[in-house]
Amino acid sequence: MAFTATRRVDFPMLDKAGIMYYPNYWDMAHRFFEESWLDICGVCYPDILDEWKLGFPAVSNECRFLAPLRYGDDIHCTLWVSSVGNSSITWEYSFSNGEAEVWRATVVTVCVDMGTLQPEPLPDSLKEDLLACAGLEV
Amino acid sequence: MAFTATRRVDFPMLDKAGIMYYPNYWDMAHRFFEESWLDICGVCYPDILDEWKLGFPAVSNECRFLAPLRYGDDIHCTLWVSSVGNSSITWEYSFSNGEAEVWRATVVTVCVDMGTLQPEPLPDSLKEDLLACAGLEV
Amino acid sequence: MAFTATRRVDFPMLDKAGIMYYPNYWDMAHRFFEESWLDICGVCYPDILDEWKLGFPAVSNECRFLAPLRYGDDIHCTLWVSSVGNSSITWEYSFSNGEAEVWRATVVTVCVDMGTLQPEPLPDSLKEDLLACAGLEV
Amino acid sequence: MAFTATRRVDFPMLDKAGIMYYPNYWDMAHRFFEESWLDICGVCYPDILDEWKLGFPAVSNECRFLAPLRYGDDIHCTLWVSSVGNSSITWEYSFSNGEAEVWRATVVTVCVDMGTLQPEPLPDSLKEDLLACAGLEV
Repeated sequence: MAFTATRRVDFPMLDKAGIMYYPNYWDMAHRFFEESWLDICGVCYPDILDEWKLGFPAVSNECRFLAPLRYGDDIHCTLWVSSVGNSSITWEYSFSNGEAEVWRATVVTVCVDMGTLQPEPLPDSLKEDLLACAGLEV
Repeated sequence: MAFTATRRVDFPMLDKAGIMYYPNYWDMAHRFFEESWLDICGVCYPDILDEWKLGFPAVSNECRFLAPLRYGDDIHCTLWVSSVGNSSITWEYSFSNGEAEVWRATVVTVCVDMGTLQPEPLPDSLKEDLLACAGLEV
Repeated sequence: MAFTATRRVDFPMLDKAGIMYYPNYWDMAHRFFEESWLDICGVCYPDILDEWKLGFPAVSNECRFLAPLRYGDDIHCTLWVSSVGNSSITWEYSFSNGEAEVWRATVVTVCVDMGTLQPEPLPDSLKEDLLACAGLEV
Repeated sequence: MAFTATRRVDFPMLDKAGIMYYPNYWDMAHRFFEESWLDICGVCYPDILDEWKLGFPAVSNECRFLAPLRYGDDIHCTLWVSSVGNSSITWEYSFSNGEAEVWRATVVTVCVDMGTLQPEPLPDSLKEDLLACAGLEV
């Protein structure tokens, strides 16, 4: 089950050419990612960081820009998990402007202890919910 | 011949975990890219945009995060062209913290008319310099 | 009549101390400002820029930070016009975390032609709506 | 003795109108502020945060925008301390584009314990250097 959310393209996201500055796709992806935790795992991301003391830094990024996002557009994000390892999670992003897909990305994150930044196995309860999002069995 | 430049990791580039927020690697990559034009093609990027009326939006991104960047680090960027097509350019980025490579990325851009955002063939003079940077013959 | 809107404090707005980085208050203020145009003047800000060819750069800023915004907080913005001149508009911002006011700011903008960046008198239709927001007569 | 430093106006600092987005003046001010610590107090800001466990959040901002900053400009910052209290410091910023002053700002910060975010008296050694920067006696 994918997570979906929509946000405006705000003025400061644009560059001088009037289209969304490309690093801002990654910034928006991260903001949708954060929001998705409550939906996918039933826990809000601030609690993951502050109470569980876990973080999920990216280890790889890959994307294709299919069409520009312009001022006045909304970004419709569809976000899902495609694979779950011992510590790693693969996230898939599809951004649409409401008419066509404009961006397609894959981010791999690794679960780390926020104090040491060293990899940690995914807690079972999270793993179960992430696998369910991926449509996979535990 | 690669372009090299160094910039500080500033406080606002960090996230709450005290390491550089991952979309900021792409933002920094773009800033180094801009700077590199004078070095690689002998023309400053503002002139490319405002006088030549050309832009170079990204069509794909790919990277691996090898180690975190922390507050107080400097980012040593090495940036070069690996391939040049009719309109497309492939840029390679390597970021180091001075001790080890921390980020390795590839960005493909396409040359567009800034008014229409439609692809344009690369002007010959730029193409020659970009090929030279790539160590290739015209 | 004030405009009100709410947005999350997203992870990238925080600094290393875990509180909202102060320039981001201004960035958020601008995003709320943009959104308010449809509500206050019945026209969306992209149309003001792209069709009316008008812009509203800030000429002064003034604010007090009353309490930090933290991760997990929502920003409840109340935004209104306190005075309207020939070209200038004074905007008042109050941000709350839902419990107490955390930020109070004043921004003066000037109406300019987007091509020349030179001051223009406010169009009558906008002026009327802005004065109404300020609780003032034309 | 004022601190001076220069940075490029990078492409992502611009807005769609081709001038520096106003919240980015504050962001740049903060980056210059950080850099100034080594010069003014002989200690780098990361050490202040991580070893001294002190932070300097802003409590008020005030500025006037005198002329736009454009792509290709350099920002020449002059930064000095105008007053020093028990915990508070008043910082003055003047940005020039090399020809004229374009921005004038005042930021008041308060010294806090980074753990509790509660005000702390300025350590004597810092206070002495800050007063010297302000041209004042201890």
